Amino acid sequence: MADSGRGPGRPRDTTINERALAATRELLVQRGFEATTIQSVAEHAGVHASALYRRWPSRIELIAEATFPGLDQRAVEPTGDLRGDLHRFVRAYVATFTAPAARAAAAGLLAHNQTSSRPRPPELNLRVSARPRFQDILRAAPPGSVDPTVDPDDVFDMLLGAILTRVLLPAATARRTPVERTVDMIMRLLAPTGGEGH
Amino acid sequence: MADSGRGPGRPRDTTINERALAATRELLVQRGFEATTIQSVAEHAGVHASALYRRWPSRIELIAEATFPGLDQRAVEPTGDLRGDLHRFVRAYVATFTAPAARAAAAGLLAHNQTSSRPRPPELNLRVSARPRFQDILRAAPPGSVDPTVDPDDVFDMLLGAILTRVLLPAATARRTPVERTVDMIMRLLAPTGGEGH
Repeated sequence: MADSGRGPGRPRDTTINERALAATRELLVQRGFEATTIQSVAEHAGVHASALYRRWPSRIELIAEATFPGLDQRAVEPTGDLRGDLHRFVRAYVATFTAPAARAAAAGLLAHNQTSSRPRPPELNLRVSARPRFQDILRAAPPGSVDPTVDPDDVFDMLLGAILTRVLLPAATARRTPVERTVDMIMRLLAPTGGEGH
Repeated sequence: MADSGRGPGRPRDTTINERALAATRELLVQRGFEATTIQSVAEHAGVHASALYRRWPSRIELIAEATFPGLDQRAVEPTGDLRGDLHRFVRAYVATFTAPAARAAAAGLLAHNQTSSRPRPPELNLRVSARPRFQDILRAAPPGSVDPTVDPDDVFDMLLGAILTRVLLPAATARRTPVERTVDMIMRLLAPTGGEGH
């Protein structure tokens, strides 16, 4: 009620969302996950904490939205070139996870999940929105280039795992150019095998 | 000096290690990662905190050793049956990560890594010891069953990712029988492709 009111009819201040999300990302990078509270975001963004609580139930949802907003649709629009499309998809996915604020938040969000009894952890939003984009890419691939017997969900899970590992255990994967290696692995999973995979 | 002394020559109390590791696992399950401190482990195990500090530099190393002790060698000894060996390997690996204490500790250890400047995070021990076991299995496979052009390290990274994802994002992978699916994916990665994977 009090966070806006610039004129007649109390227009909702639509900039609060953007300011809060930007302030959240800044605090995550500057002070870390634990220090990024609703109160500290409110102070940093110059808004009332009550305005944030009206938009996000807790700092967890706020941090999840600020750091994992979903893939850029333009970056993952399929062209029909399977390898090229996968390459852009993996790069966009990795970029989301390795942005400084996301890197600062990822492990904390996962730790919260482990102890939370919520049925649907907030940071799964990205996973959910990325999965159909991955399937769009496979559907756009030339006939015969994707084995029809392989489950796209299984391959997507492997890709998600490769990206999570890169983000959470950087020492394990820093030894080489990661995107091309991951694309190679995904191409192998998708390739028709002539019955080798039984 | 004072933590042992049952007889002449002050024999080191070798049970302290085991008692501390067991107490650590119990506290992780009962009270969670944050509450599992050197002091609380010392009280729970009935030993002096100083005896623990002589063995582990901090609670992080203690928790890592208690929860990720390495794979059971007998469970991953290769027999030459590639699919069967991979199945036992994945089961042993998943069992390590999904033990209640490991599940309670995994995200906290990863979160610690993200903020720690240590060059070598302690929980990578398991990864390091599992990687050569995986390579042993590939070496024991019948000739022609593993594509010589595929890098075992790349395949192992994919397997590690699949297991991490299952542990950290259980909602993402609970929908099916996981071990067999993961083994299928690894078999596809290893299978000779006749040049499809270029």
